[in-house]
Amino acid sequence: MKANLNLIFPPSSPVYVHNPHLEQMKDDILYHFNLGTATHNLPAMFGNVKFVCVGGSPWRMKAFIEYIAAELGLEDPKSEYPNICAGTDRYAMYKVGPVLSVSHGMGIPSISIMLHELIKLLYHAHCTDVTVIRIGTSGGIGLEPGTVVVTKQSVDATFLPKLEQVILGKTVVRSTDLDQGLAEELFQSSKELSQFETVIGNTMCTLDFYEGQARLDGAFCSYSEKDKQDYLAEAYKAGVRNIEMESSVFAAMCKLSGLRAAVVCVTLLDRLKGDQLNSSHEVLRNYQQRPQILVGHYIKKQLSASGKT
Amino acid sequence: MKANLNLIFPPSSPVYVHNPHLEQMKDDILYHFNLGTATHNLPAMFGNVKFVCVGGSPWRMKAFIEYIAAELGLEDPKSEYPNICAGTDRYAMYKVGPVLSVSHGMGIPSISIMLHELIKLLYHAHCTDVTVIRIGTSGGIGLEPGTVVVTKQSVDATFLPKLEQVILGKTVVRSTDLDQGLAEELFQSSKELSQFETVIGNTMCTLDFYEGQARLDGAFCSYSEKDKQDYLAEAYKAGVRNIEMESSVFAAMCKLSGLRAAVVCVTLLDRLKGDQLNSSHEVLRNYQQRPQILVGHYIKKQLSASGKT
Repeated sequence: MKANLNLIFPPSSPVYVHNPHLEQMKDDILYHFNLGTATHNLPAMFGNVKFVCVGGSPWRMKAFIEYIAAELGLEDPKSEYPNICAGTDRYAMYKVGPVLSVSHGMGIPSISIMLHELIKLLYHAHCTDVTVIRIGTSGGIGLEPGTVVVTKQSVDATFLPKLEQVILGKTVVRSTDLDQGLAEELFQSSKELSQFETVIGNTMCTLDFYEGQARLDGAFCSYSEKDKQDYLAEAYKAGVRNIEMESSVFAAMCKLSGLRAAVVCVTLLDRLKGDQLNSSHEVLRNYQQRPQILVGHYIKKQLSASGKT
Repeated sequence: MKANLNLIFPPSSPVYVHNPHLEQMKDDILYHFNLGTATHNLPAMFGNVKFVCVGGSPWRMKAFIEYIAAELGLEDPKSEYPNICAGTDRYAMYKVGPVLSVSHGMGIPSISIMLHELIKLLYHAHCTDVTVIRIGTSGGIGLEPGTVVVTKQSVDATFLPKLEQVILGKTVVRSTDLDQGLAEELFQSSKELSQFETVIGNTMCTLDFYEGQARLDGAFCSYSEKDKQDYLAEAYKAGVRNIEMESSVFAAMCKLSGLRAAVVCVTLLDRLKGDQLNSSHEVLRNYQQRPQILVGHYIKKQLSASGKT
């Protein structure tokens, strides 16, 4: 009987926290969002969230909420999308209908703080069936600049799909698996759109933008152009098509929380040909809209299919 | 003869880059500052910089430039301090006289990008005798909230004074030594001020705010209150008085570049007594001014002594 009922009412998937201490806390302050369970009605504010898009830059995440609002026909007539985290400058957060847009700054530690508080926010708000997509920028390997990469697997600087998380001074290894079905659906969406090149590939996640990504233009560089090219060629051989700085902890934390997760990053340059970002601002701005367009199309399609728009 | 000449004209200390490739580059784009050698006259804009103060929050770094301008009697009559990096939202930068104030976001990767570009900026601008001070926030161990910690040594999550930097997939260990003389001078300045408690102690630098700092209030927590207390007690025994997320790479990179560097952080709470930041915003704002007041006093004293104000 249970299987049949599930066909009629598919079981909804909650957002998991894994912390027995949370239940003993009277309130929970989400400090870096300037939100909290005692001061905000989180279920009323966020209970209907189904898609969370995250990206490094607060400006870009504001642009995304304006874009998706127009796409979904949910525009505010005054075009006002207030920053929900206006009381802090650590992160910016915007919402329209079932879509939340949150900035996360640069690097694993910065996005990790945001994700801890986002996961608790979704949990406190009793959200179900949430999909989280990182829409970011990256350096490409062997791709035309402007190509969008949907991440198959997030790998570390030795090309292994793992995140080393230090807990109480001891290293714990976590898997960086992403939702393969979601990656495939996003890739299909891009084919339908047919506006720009999109590939599925591995994404290398590093702790550093210069030495960690074999750049020759940092303040320090102890290796040669050949060392750099050899390293990037090795990465390419391991299936790496782009490099960024957040995907591994994003994948690991979303997986632990039962969130469907994907990473969609545009490549701003081909690292085999250079290190400096010297395209014009207009070109770079155009590139940065591509993950938004792809993910916007996907969200619209999903909401149409579920009869929610 | 050389020693005598040095007494009359003390040799000025430049800012070092360690990258032979930089000399072969026609231009250098400091992408995350939206500045560059081809588009900006960096020596004219920054050549007189002697003190750089850095901190996570852009709002706080703007407040600092206003504060130091008043302290040094260099106020803009219209109180306008434009953000030099207004073309990007990655970092904010303000300048008054010989003082530069730059935000760095949260975590080692975020401050590391900023420091690569800051070191190149100071190098391109031909700056000499530069002191860099991080003015930040932290969690204290066994200290009254609001206590300021001047860092003796920055240590990792196993209490060792080292930074593991991954270069081309291989781990290189760097020293996190800070300038002991500068730390002592800052501690003396605080004694002169006598406005709040200040201590010298070790600072633990972690890659994560929740599990990495033994907090019980993250989305995930696999350890007990006792495990947490044991870990923090061990840290205290190793001389750790506060925990933050940037000091190790800050110390390592400044040391490599020949920059005198110090870390001055206020403790927002005592981690032995809790994890949540539940003091009022007013109290937290007051605490956050303390490193600014201390460092402001120190800079004023230094400039007076050198006859520059």
